[in-house]
Amino acid sequence: MAGSELTNIKSPRVKAVRRLTKRAFRDRDRSFLAEGPQAVREALALDGVVTELFATADAELRHAEIITAATLAGVPLFRASGEVMTELAQTVTPQGLLAVCRFVHVPLERAVTADARLVAVLAHVRDPGNAGTVLRTADAAGADAVVFTDASVDPYNGKCVRASAGSLFHLPVTTGVAVTQAVQSLKDAGLRVLAADGAGKQTLDDVDLSGPTAWIFGNEAWGLPEEILRLADEVVRVPIYGRAESLNLATAAAVCLYASARSQRIGPGAG
Amino acid sequence: MAGSELTNIKSPRVKAVRRLTKRAFRDRDRSFLAEGPQAVREALALDGVVTELFATADAELRHAEIITAATLAGVPLFRASGEVMTELAQTVTPQGLLAVCRFVHVPLERAVTADARLVAVLAHVRDPGNAGTVLRTADAAGADAVVFTDASVDPYNGKCVRASAGSLFHLPVTTGVAVTQAVQSLKDAGLRVLAADGAGKQTLDDVDLSGPTAWIFGNEAWGLPEEILRLADEVVRVPIYGRAESLNLATAAAVCLYASARSQRIGPGAG
Repeated sequence: MAGSELTNIKSPRVKAVRRLTKRAFRDRDRSFLAEGPQAVREALALDGVVTELFATADAELRHAEIITAATLAGVPLFRASGEVMTELAQTVTPQGLLAVCRFVHVPLERAVTADARLVAVLAHVRDPGNAGTVLRTADAAGADAVVFTDASVDPYNGKCVRASAGSLFHLPVTTGVAVTQAVQSLKDAGLRVLAADGAGKQTLDDVDLSGPTAWIFGNEAWGLPEEILRLADEVVRVPIYGRAESLNLATAAAVCLYASARSQRIGPGAG
Repeated sequence: MAGSELTNIKSPRVKAVRRLTKRAFRDRDRSFLAEGPQAVREALALDGVVTELFATADAELRHAEIITAATLAGVPLFRASGEVMTELAQTVTPQGLLAVCRFVHVPLERAVTADARLVAVLAHVRDPGNAGTVLRTADAAGADAVVFTDASVDPYNGKCVRASAGSLFHLPVTTGVAVTQAVQSLKDAGLRVLAADGAGKQTLDDVDLSGPTAWIFGNEAWGLPEEILRLADEVVRVPIYGRAESLNLATAAAVCLYASARSQRIGPGAG
C-alpha cells in the first residue's frame, strides 16, 4: 500500500473523489465511482478502467486478491480511514473499497452492431435504481448492449452503478443518444424494435420473439410518449392476468427480456 | 367532511395514527396505513377494511370520487392540514390521502385452497420494497395467493404496502406462517413446490410449469437456506445467459411467476 493513510475528509484528494458523486464533475473528468468488492473486481478486469483505488485497512485484509490485482495493474492505491471511506461512499454500509473509474461507455455504432440479437433501450428512465436493475437484468438475459437515451438517467449515477451489480462493466453500454438515432441504428442493424408499454395492443404471448429484437423501456409512471411508440415496429405489453394495474418498470423489463432470451434459444413457440 | 381540520401534529388522534408506522402498534391494533389515491381506492373497494380516512383540502377536491365512496361506506373522514399529512405519511411527497385499514390477511387454509394454481411464498424476504414488488408481480401474473412466512418482512410495513401498489387488497395474503407448515399445505393442496435459487441444478427452461405450482423466494443476498431447499420438490434457477452473477430477487420472481403463468395458459412447451 503506497503512501500513508488518508484520514482527513477535507484533504484535496478526498474532495476530488467526493465530487464525482455529482454528474457535472463526472462529465468533466470522464470518471465515476464504483463501490464494493464486486464492482471493483469487475472494473479491474477491464484494462485501464480503474485509475485509483481506495481501501480501508480492514478491506485490504478481507480482499487481498483485489489489492493484488490492482497492484499488478499498476493502479495507485490509497488506504483510507473509516471516516474517509464513509465520506466517499454513497452507501450506508460501505464495504471499504472504492475505485475511481474511467467512463466505460462506447459510441452507439460499437454498441449496436449487425450481429446484435438482443438490445435494451432505456428511454426516459429517470430512476437510477430502476435503470441499474434493468442493466443487470439485460446482462443476465444475455443482451448484446444497453442504450441509455439522452432523456434517461446517467448510467454513472452511484445508485445506478450499484444496482447494476457489476453489469455496467460486462456489456457494451452507450449513453446520451437521441432516441430517434438509437431506433434508426437498431433498425439499420436488422433488429425489430419493440416498445414495451402497458397500452400495447399485442401482448408478449402474441409476438414472435425469436429474431433479433430491441426493447424500448420508458418511465414507469407514464410509459412511453406517443412519438416513441410511433418509432417502434410494435407496441407490446406484458399481459396482466390478475388485478394489478401495471408492473414496476424493472419487473416488466425482466419479463420482456427473458421472454426474448428464451424464445431466441428455444424457438418462436416459446415466446 | 365531518369535524374541523386537524392541524396539531401532537394531537392524540394524529399520534395514534402515526404509531401505526411501527409494527408493534400495528399488531396490537390489527390495523395499518395505506397512502395515496390508488391504495385508498383499492382498500375502500373491500367491505369494512377502511376505518378512518385522512385527506388534505387539496386531495378532497382532486379525489372527490374517493371521498364520496368513503362517505357512502360510512367511513369517518378527517381533514388534515398539510403539516399533519406530512407527519402521518411515510412518503416524501404524500398525495394527501391516507387510510387506516384493518388487517386484510387470511388464514393459511383460506389462502391455499385445492383449486389454487399459482402461489408465491416469501421466505426470509427482509426488504419490504422487494416483498411489495413480488406481491404486485404475483397479482399481475394471476397468482391465487401470496404467503409471507414468519421469517419474512411484515406485509403491512409502509414500504411494502406502497411497493405492492394496491395488490395487497387484490388477492389472498397470509402472514406469519412457518415455512414447513406452508409447504405442507401447498403439497396437500396438490401444488408442486419449487424453490427459486441461483444454485438450482435445473433451470426454468428444463421444468414443466403447466401444472399447479408454488414458488418459494428467499433473501436476495443468500438465497434459500438448505432446510428450505430440501422441503421443495425441485430447486430451480433462472438461467443466466450473460455475465451477471445473479438477478435481483424481485426480478427473478417476475421471471419465474410469468414463466408459470404463460406455461399454464399456453402449455408445457412454453415453460
